[in-house]
Amino acid sequence: MEILQSTEEMIARSRAWKAEGRRIGLVPTMGYLHRGHRSLMALLRPQVDVLVTSLYVNPLQFGPKEDFSRYPRDPEGDARACEAEGVDLLFMPMTFFPANFRTQVAVSGITSRWEGALRPGHFEGVATVVARFFGVTQADVAIFGEKDYQQLAVLRAMVRDLAMKVEIVPGPLVRDDDGLALSSRNVYLTTEQRKRALTLHQALFAMQAAKEKSVEERLALGRRMIDCDQLDYLAVVDADSLEPVEQLQGPARVLVVGRYGATRLLDNVELQ
Amino acid sequence: MEILQSTEEMIARSRAWKAEGRRIGLVPTMGYLHRGHRSLMALLRPQVDVLVTSLYVNPLQFGPKEDFSRYPRDPEGDARACEAEGVDLLFMPMTFFPANFRTQVAVSGITSRWEGALRPGHFEGVATVVARFFGVTQADVAIFGEKDYQQLAVLRAMVRDLAMKVEIVPGPLVRDDDGLALSSRNVYLTTEQRKRALTLHQALFAMQAAKEKSVEERLALGRRMIDCDQLDYLAVVDADSLEPVEQLQGPARVLVVGRYGATRLLDNVELQ
Repeated sequence: MEILQSTEEMIARSRAWKAEGRRIGLVPTMGYLHRGHRSLMALLRPQVDVLVTSLYVNPLQFGPKEDFSRYPRDPEGDARACEAEGVDLLFMPMTFFPANFRTQVAVSGITSRWEGALRPGHFEGVATVVARFFGVTQADVAIFGEKDYQQLAVLRAMVRDLAMKVEIVPGPLVRDDDGLALSSRNVYLTTEQRKRALTLHQALFAMQAAKEKSVEERLALGRRMIDCDQLDYLAVVDADSLEPVEQLQGPARVLVVGRYGATRLLDNVELQ
Repeated sequence: MEILQSTEEMIARSRAWKAEGRRIGLVPTMGYLHRGHRSLMALLRPQVDVLVTSLYVNPLQFGPKEDFSRYPRDPEGDARACEAEGVDLLFMPMTFFPANFRTQVAVSGITSRWEGALRPGHFEGVATVVARFFGVTQADVAIFGEKDYQQLAVLRAMVRDLAMKVEIVPGPLVRDDDGLALSSRNVYLTTEQRKRALTLHQALFAMQAAKEKSVEERLALGRRMIDCDQLDYLAVVDADSLEPVEQLQGPARVLVVGRYGATRLLDNVELQ
């Protein structure tokens, strides 16, 4: 496996691959890789000629009071994980944005609620960095985990609206043995917080299973079950528009974010 | 020459061309084509395998009080002009943006002055539509006239920042026999307005020729010569940043916009 730290070299490499007609796959990450990330690499590996994993903690998507500076990092462990998953090139840019960078990609509508409302500028930072990653790597296909369900919806809208040639593949959410959704941020949790955090997925599963109940009743059930310091939101939404639904008609999703101390934990499940 | 009116078909066509390894050139226009547009097609023709001209009056780049609804149109004359210039495909979308379109591309900094300041939202509309045109056509190279000098700078910044694979080629400004910069909007002018509008390029040429004079003196000279109803701006700017310069050091440009009735005429020349 090759490691590139220069964005200029990555740009040159991707252009050379395209000239050779190679199909390029991209797994964009912020590092501190867990089994969730590895499942994305494993899913994409058989679909492409060249598998690229990028590792970049994107400052644009963190708010001023968020955890950018303390976001967990483990570049050596990450490189081993990528190698084990058959990644061809690990792209770890020292400098990703050019001097005088001044372009922003923004998706409106689906960003107005949930994470978008609670983290102003977050999805603009995500869309912008991902648009540039697509340009830099010339990815034909890129995979994003359903753990960040709203992010996936935002990026699908961007790709469709700008007619980008890249195909977006969703990767199923991966859970730890105790059921907690895998996240690089789980490392922030104390043992006591982690135990209480298990009520998040327990509540989601109970809401999913309560097929005879109304949306309102399921939300009440979920709220009763969740034990967290602050419930940022628990919502039943349309799977595409992410607008809240009062009755189940088409595909829907339950989204939840609970806080444990300063740590925000996201989870979601399908509802039908 | 083929004419496509369906954006979906254009997307399918461009993907097929890429699969065949064709080099695609794009001349994006809003139609009502004049010799300036034709010079862009002629410049790009020998550089590409497939030459596409797009014709779309982009609503996103017009303000609510601007001339979107009365922008001049001549699709049949435009098709003849494209055919004569060896265009392979004329893309005239009936509907260009998908339903629920909600992505915006914005370039800050260089858009804060000049056209950006006087036409709020204009360059966001330009950058967004052009980003989508690049995606739809999969252009390897696209040409934009230096007549819209700030637009060219904005699009260059967008392509660089998002590492888009397209190459931007500038096309020299083309003047009518009397020296007036060619523009589809010249058709709005009365004979009297057109005569007075010739003072725009005359002033620019005089400022260009006054090599012994300071920037301040050249600006005073230009202001004395220009006869218009309202001078939106006359400025000597750095050729890259478009920031005003007080002394000539690197490459510079004189930008001018004069109004004649409701018609705004743009012109510019190189300095140095």
